[in-house]
Amino acid sequence: MGNHPIGIFDSGVGGLTVVKQMFKKLPSEEIVYLGDTARVPYGTKSPETIKKYSVENADFLMKFKVKLIVVACNTASSTSLDALREEFNIPIVGVIKPGAEKAVQITRNNRVGIIGTYTTVKSKAYEKEIRHFSRDVEVVSKACPLFVPLVEEGWLKEEVTFDIVKKYLKPLRVKKIDTLILGCTHYPLLKPVISKVMGRHVKIVDSASSVADEVHNILMALGKLSEQKKPAHKFFATDAIEHFVRVGEKFLGTKINRAERADYV
Amino acid sequence: MGNHPIGIFDSGVGGLTVVKQMFKKLPSEEIVYLGDTARVPYGTKSPETIKKYSVENADFLMKFKVKLIVVACNTASSTSLDALREEFNIPIVGVIKPGAEKAVQITRNNRVGIIGTYTTVKSKAYEKEIRHFSRDVEVVSKACPLFVPLVEEGWLKEEVTFDIVKKYLKPLRVKKIDTLILGCTHYPLLKPVISKVMGRHVKIVDSASSVADEVHNILMALGKLSEQKKPAHKFFATDAIEHFVRVGEKFLGTKINRAERADYV
Repeated sequence: MGNHPIGIFDSGVGGLTVVKQMFKKLPSEEIVYLGDTARVPYGTKSPETIKKYSVENADFLMKFKVKLIVVACNTASSTSLDALREEFNIPIVGVIKPGAEKAVQITRNNRVGIIGTYTTVKSKAYEKEIRHFSRDVEVVSKACPLFVPLVEEGWLKEEVTFDIVKKYLKPLRVKKIDTLILGCTHYPLLKPVISKVMGRHVKIVDSASSVADEVHNILMALGKLSEQKKPAHKFFATDAIEHFVRVGEKFLGTKINRAERADYV
Repeated sequence: MGNHPIGIFDSGVGGLTVVKQMFKKLPSEEIVYLGDTARVPYGTKSPETIKKYSVENADFLMKFKVKLIVVACNTASSTSLDALREEFNIPIVGVIKPGAEKAVQITRNNRVGIIGTYTTVKSKAYEKEIRHFSRDVEVVSKACPLFVPLVEEGWLKEEVTFDIVKKYLKPLRVKKIDTLILGCTHYPLLKPVISKVMGRHVKIVDSASSVADEVHNILMALGKLSEQKKPAHKFFATDAIEHFVRVGEKFLGTKINRAERADYV
């Protein structure tokens, strides 16, 4: 089963920042990626709806006999992991726990900030995970709903982007956090601006990178790491393939040669 | 059939700007409003998907024996009117034609600007309608994908909003348009900022208002205007009711006492 693929799904293109880290840290693993672009965004939908969508997405990935599923969407991770683990008999990895764990490890003043969508922030999923690792860490969270459309518009270095980032992050600066979790897979593209606004002393935790480490640890423990030389990755989206490829390449940092329509939606 | 309700659907809360105008201009008409909040936004989805959703939305409204359906969403109006007219045997009114017609009537220099979502702009639906009324009008269009999230965030008067509006509208100012169509039902809330950026000599066409006039004309011609004293309106959303009511009240300008879940999605 070692050479079976890893399934990854997200509400859209954002999860490709996770794929990018997987390519870097697990180059022998074959990836089947599914972006639910027909139903993006998840961040404003109810937990029940997101659970239903997550199970449907995982069902699609199971057809490829995936050995592990990464829920590369913070909103889905904060609402649907239990439902997925109940339904499917393979390891399900979310993006919340690895990011929370890393933040607890690296904070010095025990003040951690979290930014994400409304649903992610409201779910308090990061707080709960952080509490699990440490009771001493104070958590300050802030929903930044304009970040996703800014990234999708490709406005990564504009002055307005800087102003918006500054506006959203002000309460986190006031609280003097020293560690900031990017609780949305779109946000790594804004990392340079966020870093500039917060100052160099604030460490930025990019969940995508932590997730790849976690997947590596799990597959190693299960003896299921792949040994393929040239894995053939697959990309699917539930709608608007052309837009998915065009925007997705920015997230992935490399070309997407082919993407297909997943038509179960 | 005069006292039967009018059905109105949109991808979310935006269409409530149309309802607001209907309340004002057609106070005797009962409205059944449906916001497809589970599948919002339509602006980034493919025409095929939007058609399918539009027919499903209209199907839901038909249960209330509506006498006319308003497609209060520019994206759906630009893609789905033909499909809806084929499927349903009542008048279907979109937001594109009334806005285009009004712009042609009021422009003096024959230079009309259109702003909307990517899908609306790409569909060239406004251009086609304008061509239908006049061959002399030059059309300049511009997609402004950040306007919807700005409105939903409630940032209507912030400095960043002014900067973003200025950035998007620059090409329209360069082209010296004298009439600007707000081709998205969210945009009326940004009208003060848009007007300030464009200057007072540029006339702003709000489709919502033109649609209400068109509906009045059609119902009058058919002898189906309502004579109710106190019509009882109904509001439905396909997901996240609480958010729908909270944000929706800003669009409607009055309280929404009750909204129900439409669970066909």
